[in-house]
Amino acid sequence: MAGIAEVARLAGVSKSTASRALTGSGYTSDETRERVRSAAATLGYVASNSAVTLATGRTNTVGVVMPYLNRWFFAEVLEGIQQSLLERGLDLTLYDAKPGTVGRSLIFQDYLARKRFDGLIAVGLEPDDREFDRLVQLGRPVVTVVGSADTTTDVAIDDDFAARRATEHLVALGHRRIAFIGGTPQQHWAHVDRRRLDGYRGAMADAGLAEHASHIISEVTVPGGYASAVDVLGDARSRPTALVATCDEVAIGAIIAARRLGVQVPSDLSVIGIDDHEFAEMFSLTTLRQVPREQGRVAVDLLLTHIAEPDKAKAVVRMRSTLVVRNSTSALDPQHSAVVVDSRQRQADASR
Amino acid sequence: MAGIAEVARLAGVSKSTASRALTGSGYTSDETRERVRSAAATLGYVASNSAVTLATGRTNTVGVVMPYLNRWFFAEVLEGIQQSLLERGLDLTLYDAKPGTVGRSLIFQDYLARKRFDGLIAVGLEPDDREFDRLVQLGRPVVTVVGSADTTTDVAIDDDFAARRATEHLVALGHRRIAFIGGTPQQHWAHVDRRRLDGYRGAMADAGLAEHASHIISEVTVPGGYASAVDVLGDARSRPTALVATCDEVAIGAIIAARRLGVQVPSDLSVIGIDDHEFAEMFSLTTLRQVPREQGRVAVDLLLTHIAEPDKAKAVVRMRSTLVVRNSTSALDPQHSAVVVDSRQRQADASR
Repeated sequence: MAGIAEVARLAGVSKSTASRALTGSGYTSDETRERVRSAAATLGYVASNSAVTLATGRTNTVGVVMPYLNRWFFAEVLEGIQQSLLERGLDLTLYDAKPGTVGRSLIFQDYLARKRFDGLIAVGLEPDDREFDRLVQLGRPVVTVVGSADTTTDVAIDDDFAARRATEHLVALGHRRIAFIGGTPQQHWAHVDRRRLDGYRGAMADAGLAEHASHIISEVTVPGGYASAVDVLGDARSRPTALVATCDEVAIGAIIAARRLGVQVPSDLSVIGIDDHEFAEMFSLTTLRQVPREQGRVAVDLLLTHIAEPDKAKAVVRMRSTLVVRNSTSALDPQHSAVVVDSRQRQADASR
Repeated sequence: MAGIAEVARLAGVSKSTASRALTGSGYTSDETRERVRSAAATLGYVASNSAVTLATGRTNTVGVVMPYLNRWFFAEVLEGIQQSLLERGLDLTLYDAKPGTVGRSLIFQDYLARKRFDGLIAVGLEPDDREFDRLVQLGRPVVTVVGSADTTTDVAIDDDFAARRATEHLVALGHRRIAFIGGTPQQHWAHVDRRRLDGYRGAMADAGLAEHASHIISEVTVPGGYASAVDVLGDARSRPTALVATCDEVAIGAIIAARRLGVQVPSDLSVIGIDDHEFAEMFSLTTLRQVPREQGRVAVDLLLTHIAEPDKAKAVVRMRSTLVVRNSTSALDPQHSAVVVDSRQRQADASR
């Protein structure tokens, strides 16, 4: 079998360049990498990664830790990461760290300590303090997607902005009884939902509607949004005229609940989400669009930079989210408006 | 830092046993593995995997290749595999081989050839002939989930049985105009959809309803089922009274389409799926339940057996699917029955 020397000779580069190109460290030009790879293919040369790792200390593998594999956002980020790594010849080792599972403890105790990766991308991980310490102690570059921006390089949308923008859209349509749906104030309540709730509250306060702000607690899934919305939408007099959902999955659950209860969307109820989920079009859902796949790609770029330049300063990347108006939101029917004024009047009367 | 000898001494086992236990090859008893691991934890010993691999030829990694990450079935299988590997101390390297992408060619050309795994689990991969040859040439054990049962150890439900059982349920409820929805006869039309279509056709023929059999072509996603059902359900006179969907995602898309068109489920239209998707309960969907997570776990068990005993005969494992009756199916309204007789009569008249 041909060795690295033959490959280097055929490609017309040095042995170390050939080695770098083949191990996918990625610090060679695309053209050189292509030439070396085609030489290797011609000669049937395949690098022994174990030998390469022992020699270089590089594993040519990126670790990805995420708490869910079966939710849209996470699956899309993972696809973006995978595609980007594939193009660079790097492997992906996956760690599924569902909160509160034995598997999660094992990952933090055993798996990460083995350091079978050159760097780590943590997606929506929300580590507790002990877990966070372990991540830092790894001594390997870590990039987070939807993480804490304080200590790591982090990629996400601006949650506060997205929720504000969603709320402002409903305010501009004349709505006042606008509720926020999604998130639970329990142990694993995602920081992201809390940030979005804050953005919603800020926008309500700015519009002079602070007294109408309310939070409908809901698990952050389609069935979760459905279950919580069924509870709230039953009473026509007390229900909100509009919902800001913490994400499209919850928004879609709420729309399905509304249909079941005979509440018309958007004439009886406007609903806006955040995501632009693959089902958004089907439900004519107005939403703040984000592209998680792109966030995955950006995370890979940033991680590789940190691997190449360990002293590089941490970065906070906030991707744009843009309003996509479909048919789940519309101007408030004056009827509803009257009801709101009534109830405020009653409240005012009652508090006298 | 402590070495393997110290770990073995503390655990009271031989060095080779300690090594096997720590590298997660899995051929030690649970009790021994636990003792060695706790000794290693006490001493702060972490095995260098690169060194272990060079010495033993084992990577302690299982490769997983799948064409989709963001579909329910695939995400659930992946979670089952991941959990099972975690418990055994093995790593998971993920290859996302979406049909028709550059990434897929790269995986088959470069990635698999590097053999950074002791064995491979291919989930719903449907390799073409060239790809299949490459898998076989790897010389590493391969287990498929929903693959071809001819050449590899394969885990799946019995697709023919599931589709038959679904069709028979509708026949027993008095339905005759029962259509099958899902799958496209194009390049990447999944074998699984074809097998289910065959099962449906068999059951229709057995019930003397072959002339009523029809296949509504649909992409195998919720939006795909929605788009195809909207086209078909518009005309009350020609539409079927019942649908067998190739999977729950398509069934749910069809139910959403029916609701939009004012077609009542189940009084105007019965719908049955295959899966028991996480949304099935929310849509009161009658379905044939399978548990993909369990299929992932079984695939890991089988793969580890093949790694330990390379000469072991291939196995075909068919998991049970069970009928779960919810509210999306009901007995045919006699009104509809009359229409069917009418149209058959007209057909008979026309062909005279």
